[in-house]
Amino acid sequence: MMIQSYSAHEIDKHNINFPLTVPDYRYDQKNEVFKRAVWDDQIRVWASRLYSEVTFQNRPGYRQLDYALRNAAWNLEYDSGCGNSQGNSGLFSWTRVTDKIRRFIDAGEKLNRSPAELSSIVKKAARFLGADLVGICPVHPNLIYSHEYNLFTKKHYPIDLPENHSSAVVIAIEMKQEEIAHSPNAIGGAATGLGYSRMAFVANLVATYIRGLGYQAAPSGNDTALSIPLAIAAGLGELGRMGMLVTEKFGPRVRICKVFTDMPLTLDTYKPFGVTEFCMTCKKCAKHCPSQSICNGDPTVSGESISNHSGVLKWYINPEKCYKFWVKNWLDCTNCISVCPFNKPPGHIHDATRNVIRNTSAFNRFFVWLDDLLGYGKPFQAKEYWDMS
Amino acid sequence: MMIQSYSAHEIDKHNINFPLTVPDYRYDQKNEVFKRAVWDDQIRVWASRLYSEVTFQNRPGYRQLDYALRNAAWNLEYDSGCGNSQGNSGLFSWTRVTDKIRRFIDAGEKLNRSPAELSSIVKKAARFLGADLVGICPVHPNLIYSHEYNLFTKKHYPIDLPENHSSAVVIAIEMKQEEIAHSPNAIGGAATGLGYSRMAFVANLVATYIRGLGYQAAPSGNDTALSIPLAIAAGLGELGRMGMLVTEKFGPRVRICKVFTDMPLTLDTYKPFGVTEFCMTCKKCAKHCPSQSICNGDPTVSGESISNHSGVLKWYINPEKCYKFWVKNWLDCTNCISVCPFNKPPGHIHDATRNVIRNTSAFNRFFVWLDDLLGYGKPFQAKEYWDMS
Repeated sequence: MMIQSYSAHEIDKHNINFPLTVPDYRYDQKNEVFKRAVWDDQIRVWASRLYSEVTFQNRPGYRQLDYALRNAAWNLEYDSGCGNSQGNSGLFSWTRVTDKIRRFIDAGEKLNRSPAELSSIVKKAARFLGADLVGICPVHPNLIYSHEYNLFTKKHYPIDLPENHSSAVVIAIEMKQEEIAHSPNAIGGAATGLGYSRMAFVANLVATYIRGLGYQAAPSGNDTALSIPLAIAAGLGELGRMGMLVTEKFGPRVRICKVFTDMPLTLDTYKPFGVTEFCMTCKKCAKHCPSQSICNGDPTVSGESISNHSGVLKWYINPEKCYKFWVKNWLDCTNCISVCPFNKPPGHIHDATRNVIRNTSAFNRFFVWLDDLLGYGKPFQAKEYWDMS
Repeated sequence: MMIQSYSAHEIDKHNINFPLTVPDYRYDQKNEVFKRAVWDDQIRVWASRLYSEVTFQNRPGYRQLDYALRNAAWNLEYDSGCGNSQGNSGLFSWTRVTDKIRRFIDAGEKLNRSPAELSSIVKKAARFLGADLVGICPVHPNLIYSHEYNLFTKKHYPIDLPENHSSAVVIAIEMKQEEIAHSPNAIGGAATGLGYSRMAFVANLVATYIRGLGYQAAPSGNDTALSIPLAIAAGLGELGRMGMLVTEKFGPRVRICKVFTDMPLTLDTYKPFGVTEFCMTCKKCAKHCPSQSICNGDPTVSGESISNHSGVLKWYINPEKCYKFWVKNWLDCTNCISVCPFNKPPGHIHDATRNVIRNTSAFNRFFVWLDDLLGYGKPFQAKEYWDMS
């Protein structure tokens, strides 16, 4: 079966040479399960427990010292960024917030370099400023949310990203396997939280850099536009069975942020490395998902939930079941990330395996069998994170 | 000669078992050269040029794309932290700023663990949250600034760190040699700026973690107290000839932040590894300092400037000459950091050399000669940072 999930090349009606097929409508972010937890009675009733009734438990990963790590890791996002609730605010502001310290002049003029040179410059700056992976793609209008829904104000309003912000610098932030392996407890949640805080940090600094070259820059976390298809179009990886970006270097152990800009840039393109074919065989994420929210079968062209962005051939997850487990767990879960065989750190054998997978799917079944045999990617077994000796 | 710089063990009149000798008075931060640039006519006259007259130059490291990297790297400190100008504000606030997102409960009770366990826990958390080195020391009152001077409001007021914040979790943040090597241009300045932004990030998150365990936490950048002697007392390194902390792993390529807390913690202590003796011989920082601000001779017990914190045997720098070069250079300078032989990355030969230096000073002159011979630590030769191919 040929999978076309976010992969068919076509020129669409928008005349954007976007390297993927995208749905023919813009997604209203109000339909995200996290937003529905505020306005949708179907979810709100049980979701309220997650927000207000958490108590510490006397088992590793669910105690005060574990929750405290998770909360600390999130704190830059909580205190200074609002990427999860609102775009164009805090560290994700689309304009420079303050000139309180202005020791060195801001750029007045646009730096006059070729798109290839500007791309190379911006990518080098992004890596220095904290990006673990960086790519550039065009901004397909259907990947911009139609509306945003603010969790605090409960306001619902259209997104108005300026039209001239036609490129996205897409940035992946690694989450460390040491902590992710503790999913679904608070140590795993800390890896996610640190990813979000680093998203706010890096997106803000990269946007500041682009402004310093005289161009406009709108940094963004989970707000404003769908990060995963943008990341795929920017060459950062493929869509995995679990519905997340799978990168070659870190597997799905990444968070994504992006900076929209009017800077003329050379665009990257889709760079598959065998993930889709591997996911057809592997199914470890689906097998180990504690809520069985991940599709065990073949890709389809639409999901069953209003939270899905239907219209392309891919694996759709069940966000209601997924979120319900979070509530039951009193914490977010990343088991689908932690069990993924693509998580392996670099090394001779792992790199050689990735190279085979890139070139042929013939050995995928063997690799999954071997992954299991070697004891990788088991679902979490409660163990101690803290060394208190 | 026996150097006692920040190293003599004694119980002082404060009855704090602080591992170093410290001056017998508290330093008024108004006397820092950066603050004097605002109020002291001796410096203000020429310093104004650095703040308002910068123009790009057509040479590597001083162009728009170079300055933009420096400004971007500083931006978290500029926008959201005020560690360089004011303590207890922004990301360095001594209390939690917002409970806007409060999905998981804050701790009400103090975590009941031994000081040894709490130290181990906090250090592991700090490393995860971004600290490259972490140690713990008692807070000697004479290392707390007597007063702070705000660069923007020009207000001058006493520091009132709560007395029960008797321990400091001291954190070092690495600056990468790739960028530091470009000192004194804007690429070198970007390494410094990123260090400051990361200080705000890490100090904020570590303080949040400590609060989550039920204790008080006051994060701090350059504000509130002298970071270098605290870092030395926390076992992070020794004072180098250039007046900065020299760590075993990164040499002087670090920035320091700290979190004061009332948590009962096991204290680290002074851990020399041969720096003072090596600095007696080496003198590369003094030789390559573009303004000849670094003492070329033996340590003394007092400096000649009101910006020095006199009263202990150490090398005092000349901050007026140093800062005057910054003004002439239109940028900050870290040449003394970039040329230091202790900057070497880990590796068999470097580690073996460090091991010899730790145990004997007999070969120090040879090592300095070898360092020169191998071409290390030359002052900056203009070269291109950006690969625009």
